[in-house]
Amino acid sequence: MAISVTAALLIIGDEILTGRTKDKNIGYIAEYLTGIGVDLREVRVVPDVEEEIVAAVNALRGRYTYLFTTGGIGPTHDDITADCIAKAFGVGIDHDPRAVAMLRERYTPEELNEARLRMARIPDGADLIENPISKAPGFRIGNVFVMAGVPSIMQAMLDIIAPSLETGARMIIETIEAEGLAEGIYAEGLSLIASSSPSVSIGSYPSFSTGGFRNQIVVRGKDPEAVADAAAAVRDHLARLKGDQAPL
Amino acid sequence: MAISVTAALLIIGDEILTGRTKDKNIGYIAEYLTGIGVDLREVRVVPDVEEEIVAAVNALRGRYTYLFTTGGIGPTHDDITADCIAKAFGVGIDHDPRAVAMLRERYTPEELNEARLRMARIPDGADLIENPISKAPGFRIGNVFVMAGVPSIMQAMLDIIAPSLETGARMIIETIEAEGLAEGIYAEGLSLIASSSPSVSIGSYPSFSTGGFRNQIVVRGKDPEAVADAAAAVRDHLARLKGDQAPL
Repeated sequence: MAISVTAALLIIGDEILTGRTKDKNIGYIAEYLTGIGVDLREVRVVPDVEEEIVAAVNALRGRYTYLFTTGGIGPTHDDITADCIAKAFGVGIDHDPRAVAMLRERYTPEELNEARLRMARIPDGADLIENPISKAPGFRIGNVFVMAGVPSIMQAMLDIIAPSLETGARMIIETIEAEGLAEGIYAEGLSLIASSSPSVSIGSYPSFSTGGFRNQIVVRGKDPEAVADAAAAVRDHLARLKGDQAPL
Repeated sequence: MAISVTAALLIIGDEILTGRTKDKNIGYIAEYLTGIGVDLREVRVVPDVEEEIVAAVNALRGRYTYLFTTGGIGPTHDDITADCIAKAFGVGIDHDPRAVAMLRERYTPEELNEARLRMARIPDGADLIENPISKAPGFRIGNVFVMAGVPSIMQAMLDIIAPSLETGARMIIETIEAEGLAEGIYAEGLSLIASSSPSVSIGSYPSFSTGGFRNQIVVRGKDPEAVADAAAAVRDHLARLKGDQAPL
């Protein structure tokens, strides 16, 4: 089995915590990382408060292979992510000539005022992450990738970052519809299958709409054979139950 | 000024971390709590792993007035939230006769099998939170509220919980459109306004679509006069800049 490459995601911004902005980055990044073989293990959302950001960065970068952050790298006073990252790593921060050069592609010397130059403040020792949309770069320092919060820019940065990431075996995911069967009916057998398939994880996910409950069983794992075996066992179990069940 | 009532939210579930399910609860709960005067200060998403859940519950319940959790209270083997909460509080857990009675409203004695009875496992000393949709209750223990992950059920539970919450002064939020002005143009003045308005927080939020950037400035605070004053200062600042600006 390949090594496991893990990640955490830190979403920085009061606007998410007040509900003003509905986050779109967690789901996107989760799916993206899963797809390339990086296991997202934890997400945190913290406010634009220095101590909170620094504490979360240090807690998460130590626990996982990678930490990704989104938000707080614009030109306004509430954009404090770069300074917090420098503080978390105990390094200096200043206008980075490479970042200034990138901003010059977008702004005339007159437009490149002090506020906009804030976007070129990069912690010492960091590598820049290009921003094909609005030029102000993200950066990587150690195992931490600092990205914009605007989804389209974050997505472009993630595409740029991805080839540089170590990746592990990709998660194989099989979804099985439990058509017409209630969770409480298949739970016991599912638990037995889960116990006898230690290398896969099996989840049961109800969703509810006007049509009533719809249950899906998801088998996840990195060993293709183990996933296929467990999924087959789940399908057999459901088929047996359907045969047994009295008509609704 | 009224006291500040704070909260954290813990989203429990592998399905969010793999991107299979796109979370809809964070934005809803954030907006809901903000609306009733509870300040959401932190969100975490953790997998269906006992140590992770227990550690997060204990970290968060100690730091904030309230902790809300979603997910992991169904009948299948991967629903381990109730057991983790009991462990976090160091209390026992067993079938709760009140919870069993609720399940009996939905299930016949024959249907109420061992798996479904799992949904009546409630930590000792907890109060139940009714589930008007599918009966299996959530619960409150200490300052922790344990809710379902299915959005419609979580929302119904939150409506039931809300009247029992202590609430602080409600956050007043004013949103100002920075029509046609770039963040880098208004950032310096905005920073000065923010510095001279210590009781409010001011954020600048760009969003990006095919029409280009759209910037909104949000002034937040609990003192109505301070929010109104800061918002007026922001509007004056933007109007002055528009007067100055050469046509695009």
